[in-house]
Amino acid sequence: MKKTIAAVMALLLVAAAPVSAQDLMTKKEVFSIASFTTQSGRTLKDVKVGWESYGTLNADKSNAILICHFFSGNSHAAGKYSADEKAAGYWDAIIGPGKAIDTNKYFVLSSDTLVNLNMDPNTTTTGPASINPDTGKPYGMDFPIVSFRDFIEVQKQLVESLGIKKLVMVGGASMGALQAYEWASTYPDMVGKLMPVIAAGTADAGLIGWLDIWASPIRLDPKWNNGDYYGKEPPLAGLTQSLKIVTMHANHFDWANATFQSKWAKEGEDPQKSHAAKYAVEGVLEAAGAARAKVSDANHFLYLVKANQQFAAADSTARLSKIKAPTLLIYSPKDMVFMGDYVKKTAEALKAGGTKVETVELQGNRGHLDGVLSIKQAEKAISDFLAK
Amino acid sequence: MKKTIAAVMALLLVAAAPVSAQDLMTKKEVFSIASFTTQSGRTLKDVKVGWESYGTLNADKSNAILICHFFSGNSHAAGKYSADEKAAGYWDAIIGPGKAIDTNKYFVLSSDTLVNLNMDPNTTTTGPASINPDTGKPYGMDFPIVSFRDFIEVQKQLVESLGIKKLVMVGGASMGALQAYEWASTYPDMVGKLMPVIAAGTADAGLIGWLDIWASPIRLDPKWNNGDYYGKEPPLAGLTQSLKIVTMHANHFDWANATFQSKWAKEGEDPQKSHAAKYAVEGVLEAAGAARAKVSDANHFLYLVKANQQFAAADSTARLSKIKAPTLLIYSPKDMVFMGDYVKKTAEALKAGGTKVETVELQGNRGHLDGVLSIKQAEKAISDFLAK
Repeated sequence: MKKTIAAVMALLLVAAAPVSAQDLMTKKEVFSIASFTTQSGRTLKDVKVGWESYGTLNADKSNAILICHFFSGNSHAAGKYSADEKAAGYWDAIIGPGKAIDTNKYFVLSSDTLVNLNMDPNTTTTGPASINPDTGKPYGMDFPIVSFRDFIEVQKQLVESLGIKKLVMVGGASMGALQAYEWASTYPDMVGKLMPVIAAGTADAGLIGWLDIWASPIRLDPKWNNGDYYGKEPPLAGLTQSLKIVTMHANHFDWANATFQSKWAKEGEDPQKSHAAKYAVEGVLEAAGAARAKVSDANHFLYLVKANQQFAAADSTARLSKIKAPTLLIYSPKDMVFMGDYVKKTAEALKAGGTKVETVELQGNRGHLDGVLSIKQAEKAISDFLAK
Repeated sequence: MKKTIAAVMALLLVAAAPVSAQDLMTKKEVFSIASFTTQSGRTLKDVKVGWESYGTLNADKSNAILICHFFSGNSHAAGKYSADEKAAGYWDAIIGPGKAIDTNKYFVLSSDTLVNLNMDPNTTTTGPASINPDTGKPYGMDFPIVSFRDFIEVQKQLVESLGIKKLVMVGGASMGALQAYEWASTYPDMVGKLMPVIAAGTADAGLIGWLDIWASPIRLDPKWNNGDYYGKEPPLAGLTQSLKIVTMHANHFDWANATFQSKWAKEGEDPQKSHAAKYAVEGVLEAAGAARAKVSDANHFLYLVKANQQFAAADSTARLSKIKAPTLLIYSPKDMVFMGDYVKKTAEALKAGGTKVETVELQGNRGHLDGVLSIKQAEKAISDFLAK
């Protein structure tokens, strides 16, 4: 059981990748913007996001690839901060020297988004939990509602600060893929290739509804207090349940069955004899959610939901028609968040607009999470796509 | 919008069926058991459940069919209580004179389960909200945890009280199908045919985990108060969210997209400009959940979750091997609660045990709910199955 909890927690925090003989090393850096105006028209002072990179930017700055992160992730896409770390970044299987996204050739970078979920030493973000320089207090729910367009405007300033004028490719998994779509449609001349993984680019009321389901436990927790909990007890119970829903949704039933069967959370405590006793699947997800909640921020979760909903509500016909970058769409047929059929519709819409599209289907029992945990299956498709 | 809310609410309360020229009439009856001992060994006094029937029991009592109801349903499977009612029972499309389950030929009956979710005049049940005759107060969480075996033992006493020794068929949708599996494996000599709709009979840790997700908002609501809320304010906010999750889960993304697109809940209130403003899919499900919560009981919801979890945790190899009734399995390929692959595995396991199995695939955009709303598609398969 302890092993399973550790495995699920590692997955939620940062997916563990196998350690290779020649570990890729990276370090967290911080990018600051003195004054940033959101799409909604609010000007924020001293916006900061963390970022990291792998490989070396060439002299004419023409070898950069941007990786955007998923809902619960951060910019730690690959490599390690120190040799004794157990796990490397979540896509270490495809980013590194000699790997599909070859850091001997490419300069790969990734940045923490605005309103990033994580409150840990390896994440820097600006959001409701940040101190508003004008008041000296956290913004709380007074932080402006931000969108993926805001996320990528911050990324664009980071990229331009490095002298990069065009990206070889923009890619990402899940919410990272949504940002990649946003990049390729907003700045088609800056994006050479597009690699959205486990995410459709179409409008989706089902996704809007499910994101609301994800958020609802936070709002039910009285400690959430309409977002005013900084300096007080945070709404850990609600956030724990929200994170549990995300984990269930991001995994296929096949994974739950293979991992937990009908086991009980604690030996001798039959879940049918007591309301307090749980099945293993409940106990492990609860423990993983609770551990993760302690290093996450509930308001940031709600802001991420809003940003994802805006993407899911926007006119996707217009969005997809603006994309001209050749596209590699990687998806999982067991994905319960972005179903295979929706990814295929995105492929059709892009093709109809004259864009070259290839698709890769990942095998596995995780569903959505196979886009992170089984990404190595796509390594040849990715290296071939980059070589074209 | 009002139309959509009404439609979703009708669906949640009791699925609306088209009114036919010759309306089937029924009435609610109450079956009482003076002393009932649960599988867990607790003896309950004065157990009562509601039930209704359609058609006439023949002289040798050999024409009875039992229909078990789904999680949020009750025994109103078909017909109307009065001519001016707008909607008939949820499976009226297949139960009635001349219909697939022909009430000119069969005596069809259905009963409310123990711990039934509904607190309305057309439901009678015994559960945490019932008065414990020994204390004069509601049982609350002191009510024993009950199982589908308990549900069907009550049904068996009802059936036997009518002089019925064997049922022509036991069927049901979703949780109704799970009870039907339980019937056919526990009393194989009493069940002539088996018709499980939108439900697999296999153990399923994924289902155990999702049932916990369904229940979690109730436990987060401080008004739930560990189940002690009778005579006080009930946990409507939590129960509303629980019912919202059930609705999202019981529908496919295709339905949400076809029904709501990216519409806002209220004209002029852009969900991206305010945390209070919602999209239509959120607003409608919230309103439907809130309306339904008022006529439901939160503790009963939790007890139903436990009963379903026990089924999903039990040894299904043993269960399915005991079933000998020829089986008609009806499923939806877009079902997100009981996926098509799991129903097919159930079919294979039954066949391996020597049971005759036929399958019918329903088309539609509802997913799980197509087992209720699109059941008419299976009418020929059902009448042929009964005629064999």
